Amino acid sequence: MELDSILSPVKKNLALFDLKLTENLNSDSILISQVASHLVNRRGKRLRPAMVFLSFGLCLDSKAHSSPPHQMMNVALAVEFIHTATLLHDDVIDQSKVRRGQVSVNHKWNNLVSVLMGDFLLAKALRLLVETESPSLLSTISKATVNLSIGEMSEVQESHNFDLDEETYFQIISDKTASLFTASCEGGAVAAGADPGMQKKLREYGHNLGMAFQITDDLLDWVGESEKTGKGLGTDLKEGKITLPLIHTLRECDPPTRKKITRLLKNDFNQKDFDQILSLMKGNGGVEYAHKKADSFGKKAQNCLSDFKDSEHKKALQDLIQFVIKREK
Amino acid sequence: MELDSILSPVKKNLALFDLKLTENLNSDSILISQVASHLVNRRGKRLRPAMVFLSFGLCLDSKAHSSPPHQMMNVALAVEFIHTATLLHDDVIDQSKVRRGQVSVNHKWNNLVSVLMGDFLLAKALRLLVETESPSLLSTISKATVNLSIGEMSEVQESHNFDLDEETYFQIISDKTASLFTASCEGGAVAAGADPGMQKKLREYGHNLGMAFQITDDLLDWVGESEKTGKGLGTDLKEGKITLPLIHTLRECDPPTRKKITRLLKNDFNQKDFDQILSLMKGNGGVEYAHKKADSFGKKAQNCLSDFKDSEHKKALQDLIQFVIKREK
Repeated sequence: MELDSILSPVKKNLALFDLKLTENLNSDSILISQVASHLVNRRGKRLRPAMVFLSFGLCLDSKAHSSPPHQMMNVALAVEFIHTATLLHDDVIDQSKVRRGQVSVNHKWNNLVSVLMGDFLLAKALRLLVETESPSLLSTISKATVNLSIGEMSEVQESHNFDLDEETYFQIISDKTASLFTASCEGGAVAAGADPGMQKKLREYGHNLGMAFQITDDLLDWVGESEKTGKGLGTDLKEGKITLPLIHTLRECDPPTRKKITRLLKNDFNQKDFDQILSLMKGNGGVEYAHKKADSFGKKAQNCLSDFKDSEHKKALQDLIQFVIKREK
Repeated sequence: MELDSILSPVKKNLALFDLKLTENLNSDSILISQVASHLVNRRGKRLRPAMVFLSFGLCLDSKAHSSPPHQMMNVALAVEFIHTATLLHDDVIDQSKVRRGQVSVNHKWNNLVSVLMGDFLLAKALRLLVETESPSLLSTISKATVNLSIGEMSEVQESHNFDLDEETYFQIISDKTASLFTASCEGGAVAAGADPGMQKKLREYGHNLGMAFQITDDLLDWVGESEKTGKGLGTDLKEGKITLPLIHTLRECDPPTRKKITRLLKNDFNQKDFDQILSLMKGNGGVEYAHKKADSFGKKAQNCLSDFKDSEHKKALQDLIQFVIKREK
């Protein structure tokens, strides 16, 4: 199913979001405006704002009482800004030349501009949250932002650690990815004036969706098609990121295979090594295992929605799970 | 006058600040703790937290009503975290090997760690501000954070622009430096429950002190002693930063001198070129002019304090102006 069609119940909100995004990126600094227009033209999937809008809509369907309308939009803008800031900062780190299928900011300008533009977006996100005048929204999103950066640092710390266990991997992706998914859904619920029970369900939905999303993302680095993902295969491996299919394989395979894989991992990265590891990974069920785990988180996300009454928003949140798990980019 | 002695009225607050700083940098991520302990050991002048404490004290002396005590400390921690984050991000940009006279984080670890640690500190600053539960404090500091990043971007935009005028230079340093000085002083006043009049006076004091600070900082890049400043001379010039002594010189000198200087500026940087430019700058009154401007902002800062009754805090804020203007590092 196409993402656009899944998100049709919040189409109007997303259109308004695009306008507000441009409006909020206007600045006296010409350079900021230039980089902003580059970013806006190469926009991503807008998954996080969509989650804010869908969660908001779902809670209203279930008789929540909405707070001032600008709260929902500010939260959506803030989570997208925070997300984009992490991409800009990751690009510096990775020395990426490509982002979202287009040339990256650090390649078009330089590292300096990429770091500072990320900082500008973080500062703007903070402003937007302050403007909501909602302590609860500020608390939700600020917690996520701390966790996000802890997750990024933990990932660095564990890079090239071939003994990384599944539990630590889950903690890292929970912090670096699921935390902002969680905050987006909870933020939508809070802005809708939902009761604590609904907030909790949507928080859990966001967490599980985020886990499924990142596991799938990590899988695509192994088995995706470069033209679709917009980045080369094996990018994670080059950076020493050890992800679920590899963790499972290293844990389950026999000692000689483990020895062989770790030897290949220590090589400078080349396509032949990558193919050999992938083949051993498939033979040892690593790819299948990661798919199953993503499915399992997807099912948990699905269950979080069961208490909400049926609506187009509920349907969209359900379809989003399938989209996240089955996507090819 | 030594900084420690100037700051003696807020000595206890600064000691508590050091404890809280360490406490707030504790994290489940081992890497964060390691980098944090590196940063704490190589601490800076703590000017911004001191400004929070002194402004707070000054307002209480003048019969303001204090808000919960944790507010003052949280603001002090937040402004220091934001400041340290910008240093960490600047280090990446500058490829600096030295910061505060010690090896920089990006050199000891790498660019990646420096960017992510900065992001962690920004996220923590946001958390600390949210915990104050003060919309007014959140608003003050978040505005400063936006201005700060606009200033940094404008500086990049204007780098290598030999036609940079004084007005634009002042706007840039107002945004990138004075904004956080302003927010620190205003934040202290707000936390003390000061009336709008006092808040305004301290906001203006902070602005003028920040302007004097940055002009002096830029001067030290030309005429400071490398051993004292902890960085090499001419660092700004290498990065294409055009600062006040040079702006004045290029504006005032005769056309052949201007031609000579711009030719030298376009060269790859070497010590001989630097010395030659410095000599032309001194001959055309550029260094003297910048000193005078710093003094003039210092006097404006001084005037902002006139309505407050005499106290040890007032004396410290007055001495701080002299320290900022006369410092050699």
